[in-house]
Amino acid sequence: MITVVGMGPGKEAMMTEEALAALDRADVIIGYTVYLELLGDRFAGKEYLSTPMKQEVERCRMCFEQAAMGKEVAMICSGDAGIYGMASLMFELGEEYDAEHPGASMLTDICVIPGITAASSGAAVLGAPLNHDFCVISLSDLLTPWELIEKRLRAAADGDFAIAIYNPSSRKRHDYLQKACDILMEKADPERACGYVRNIGRDGTESHVCTLAELRDTQVDMFTTVFVGNSQSRIIGDRLVTPRGYKK
Amino acid sequence: MITVVGMGPGKEAMMTEEALAALDRADVIIGYTVYLELLGDRFAGKEYLSTPMKQEVERCRMCFEQAAMGKEVAMICSGDAGIYGMASLMFELGEEYDAEHPGASMLTDICVIPGITAASSGAAVLGAPLNHDFCVISLSDLLTPWELIEKRLRAAADGDFAIAIYNPSSRKRHDYLQKACDILMEKADPERACGYVRNIGRDGTESHVCTLAELRDTQVDMFTTVFVGNSQSRIIGDRLVTPRGYKK
Repeated sequence: MITVVGMGPGKEAMMTEEALAALDRADVIIGYTVYLELLGDRFAGKEYLSTPMKQEVERCRMCFEQAAMGKEVAMICSGDAGIYGMASLMFELGEEYDAEHPGASMLTDICVIPGITAASSGAAVLGAPLNHDFCVISLSDLLTPWELIEKRLRAAADGDFAIAIYNPSSRKRHDYLQKACDILMEKADPERACGYVRNIGRDGTESHVCTLAELRDTQVDMFTTVFVGNSQSRIIGDRLVTPRGYKK
Repeated sequence: MITVVGMGPGKEAMMTEEALAALDRADVIIGYTVYLELLGDRFAGKEYLSTPMKQEVERCRMCFEQAAMGKEVAMICSGDAGIYGMASLMFELGEEYDAEHPGASMLTDICVIPGITAASSGAAVLGAPLNHDFCVISLSDLLTPWELIEKRLRAAADGDFAIAIYNPSSRKRHDYLQKACDILMEKADPERACGYVRNIGRDGTESHVCTLAELRDTQVDMFTTVFVGNSQSRIIGDRLVTPRGYKK
């Protein structure tokens, strides 16, 4: 069995019992180094394997090689394994592995265990920004053409969705959030209620509420998740709240 | 402290440790009867309070009344408390309570603990359908005008988002999924890869993959979450997989 495990934002208390049980059961835990380091002493006796960033394909193939040796394998991802995580690549490469290795059945041996994604964990810190229909959009253009990201931002604004924005910034993409806000403001009021959360579920968690116009001029880092309300969202105290409609 | 707790799909193994700890700490657990019944023996000694369905406002006010007596209160929601859950209503009513009760500070005492929402848990059962930008849309028009739901479905198709559809059906709304699929097919290929999961995280979990055209002619029930892939999604074995792009 190869289990692709969503570890949530990082701390053990935000993992599910079934995620912890899958790691307890594993002979080898495979993941990006930063995530392996977030795992506590509970798994100290396990074999840990990793590959550098951007070697995701190699990391997944490592899972199949280890499983072929008869080991119980857990691949860890931050947040949810199926939301910008490794789950889809594991299925794609599992299919390829089985085609290349007659008799292998890696594809059917892959099991995904969900975790708390930043849309959920960040929203909880900020209040309830995603409490109606919402979109999740990553601003990273490493794997996605920027034109498609722009198209999705426009569609999200057209649909008056609340939005969770992942990967709002990086060293090379310091102005992407600004560009995204400009696109959203083609349709959305600059006064639209927004917020952002930094270091969710880790030391030094901080959250801020602001307007869309203020968000445009805010420099966030790669450890931040950004939330844009819908037209009904409002700031209550220091929380960002998108009503579900029960109060009407 | 009033903690609004996301309990995930139902079984204890899919709750986070911090959610379980909040329930352990509570003097009184408040929630919709069906969710209280899902809680295991672990909390058998606690006081349980409930209101019938559609009395969400009363249920939230009950939290403030109990907290005002000095009790530690936990309000439980299925899935994630901030995704179609009670979190936003709690903030709205907390603000109201504080305005009506000089000296009260219910609003600042509300804390949200995230849980695994059906988009995550259902996706994990099905494979990796939401492994790129996605929308979450509820087809329930109890609190949302159907015209707005239609607008969001069109926007989701325009943006080529993967989509998780909540509340796809009910006794009174047996043809809503059919209507939703017809709207999506104005833009999306009828061969678009889709799937659905029933009874996520409970006894009798079942998942199916199909095309969008087949989904249109499928009768699902209220315990089902539906997933529509984006234009790049495909069915691999019996899984629905939306590539992230690592394999290119």
